Amino acid sequence: MTSGEFELIARYFKPLASADAPAFGLGDDAAVFSPPENKDLVMTKDALVAGVHFFADDAPDLVARKAVRVNISDLAAMGAMPYGYLLALAIPKEMKNIDDWVSKFARGLAQDQEKFNWSLIGGDTVSTTGPLSLSVTAIGTVERGCALKRAGAQAGDQIYVSGSLGDSALGLAFLKGEIEGEGAALIKRYQIPEPRTELGAKLFGIATAAMDISDGLAGDLGHICEQSDLGAIIYENSLPLSKAAGKVLERYCAYKDLIWRGGDDYELLFTAPVDQEKSIEQLAVELDLRITNIGHMTVEKDLIIVDKAGKNRMFDKQGYQHF
Amino acid sequence: MTSGEFELIARYFKPLASADAPAFGLGDDAAVFSPPENKDLVMTKDALVAGVHFFADDAPDLVARKAVRVNISDLAAMGAMPYGYLLALAIPKEMKNIDDWVSKFARGLAQDQEKFNWSLIGGDTVSTTGPLSLSVTAIGTVERGCALKRAGAQAGDQIYVSGSLGDSALGLAFLKGEIEGEGAALIKRYQIPEPRTELGAKLFGIATAAMDISDGLAGDLGHICEQSDLGAIIYENSLPLSKAAGKVLERYCAYKDLIWRGGDDYELLFTAPVDQEKSIEQLAVELDLRITNIGHMTVEKDLIIVDKAGKNRMFDKQGYQHF
Repeated sequence: MTSGEFELIARYFKPLASADAPAFGLGDDAAVFSPPENKDLVMTKDALVAGVHFFADDAPDLVARKAVRVNISDLAAMGAMPYGYLLALAIPKEMKNIDDWVSKFARGLAQDQEKFNWSLIGGDTVSTTGPLSLSVTAIGTVERGCALKRAGAQAGDQIYVSGSLGDSALGLAFLKGEIEGEGAALIKRYQIPEPRTELGAKLFGIATAAMDISDGLAGDLGHICEQSDLGAIIYENSLPLSKAAGKVLERYCAYKDLIWRGGDDYELLFTAPVDQEKSIEQLAVELDLRITNIGHMTVEKDLIIVDKAGKNRMFDKQGYQHF
Repeated sequence: MTSGEFELIARYFKPLASADAPAFGLGDDAAVFSPPENKDLVMTKDALVAGVHFFADDAPDLVARKAVRVNISDLAAMGAMPYGYLLALAIPKEMKNIDDWVSKFARGLAQDQEKFNWSLIGGDTVSTTGPLSLSVTAIGTVERGCALKRAGAQAGDQIYVSGSLGDSALGLAFLKGEIEGEGAALIKRYQIPEPRTELGAKLFGIATAAMDISDGLAGDLGHICEQSDLGAIIYENSLPLSKAAGKVLERYCAYKDLIWRGGDDYELLFTAPVDQEKSIEQLAVELDLRITNIGHMTVEKDLIIVDKAGKNRMFDKQGYQHF
């Protein structure tokens, strides 16, 4: 990509980077910054491939915004606020209208830079014989010693989730044409996840363990169980649904497993001692965000979902359903 | 890749990560660390695609070591020492023996972790329908305010390079079968670059501008010219060659342009005032590393190579040869 690479960077990515440190307008070998005092740094990296994580013909600005937001969701899960990001973009050699695609992609990045108050600090643009792919390295900051962890849940702790579950997976089913009806709100949840940064930043001292739900509630709760060496019981009845999802599931009840197995929720999943109930209720009011108690942690290491008929379904730690 | 992803991470990448912060054994949503006091952080990210940046059948441990080293070279160019890295790996869906490839790849990472005294702190493993590709995000530390920059060269500053030029590009010509003879040393230079971290860490207060040579001397010196708003004259006679390269160029003189146009040198290119000559000579002795004065910065903004016959060849800022 040689000279094309430098042109793309100058035209579309430089405007996303500050002229001073850390980015120096992307003109240096690397970004440099003095870390903010009394803060810890949080870093995460997610890769996305066209045809695997998004559709090759998805709108480039939506691809950008989703790539950024799934990483910010990881920061939120640690209680961290966005600071800056690095981007690697691999563009197919045979792609036509590279400029058009990259300009729209950069517009999506710009839109979310404002919303999340962060900026591009570095990266790389290369060509590939494969599908378009990218990876984002996100850097966040959190008060020193105040990062949330997955390990730390205690037996008896209540289990909470933010927002609603399954919307994104149902949105994807709409996009694939598997189901029909009023899907716009659900599709939007799939395309533009809403990282729960404000909630994450307030959970230190309340939550004993936290993570974001990216691979589905069951699998991800399995990670907390594993890291905390515990099990969990959750109640299907209590799982929070959006109105839109509730309506769809009335017609397509075979899809109800998506509530705990569908991916891309990007809600926060956390555990907290029983005596934090009030604080959590207050937080929900303060942030105008639904926060739902869905079950509790157990000494027995199984992960059990009690269905609406009161029957137990057991999952293993990877979210795989045994019986 | 779902469950396969977690297994690969657990089996091959967890052993590369520390059980404590920043990596928490890769068991959390993100890495967390308290940045070392009185240091600045330096971050860079390079992407590599099979068939573009390396051969699909290259030994996996060499792919790993090169990916790591080109990033460490960027850190060295800023005067920073390696601290930790994040890795995104996209594995072809149809790849056979994924375990075999990844285990060898991880072995290469482990080998260089020891050498560069850093460790894996996070990342992502995904599948792709395209060629194997990866990106490394490298984090380094440098004394606060002591990072080297590309901008800062003054007219009259001498221009220096470490080591020797063109070895790697000649090594690649051997690998492609374009040239024949004693190529082992040159091929090794292509496959396992030697980032000049020790030199970079000692250049603050000496160099006015610095970068690593990854796209060829002419193009990269063009970046320093552009960032410093100057030009440069370099002398072909003074360009440092290894013995192996010298021998090859006697037989294949058409390849001599690779000395200033060939990529993948990963030597440091820096400028320094004339009165630093002694310090630089001492540094070369101390580090047992060749450091060669190859020319000087000029007010006229052209980049000129004076060839052995005393004739001028002019390049523009991107390393493109005008005439």
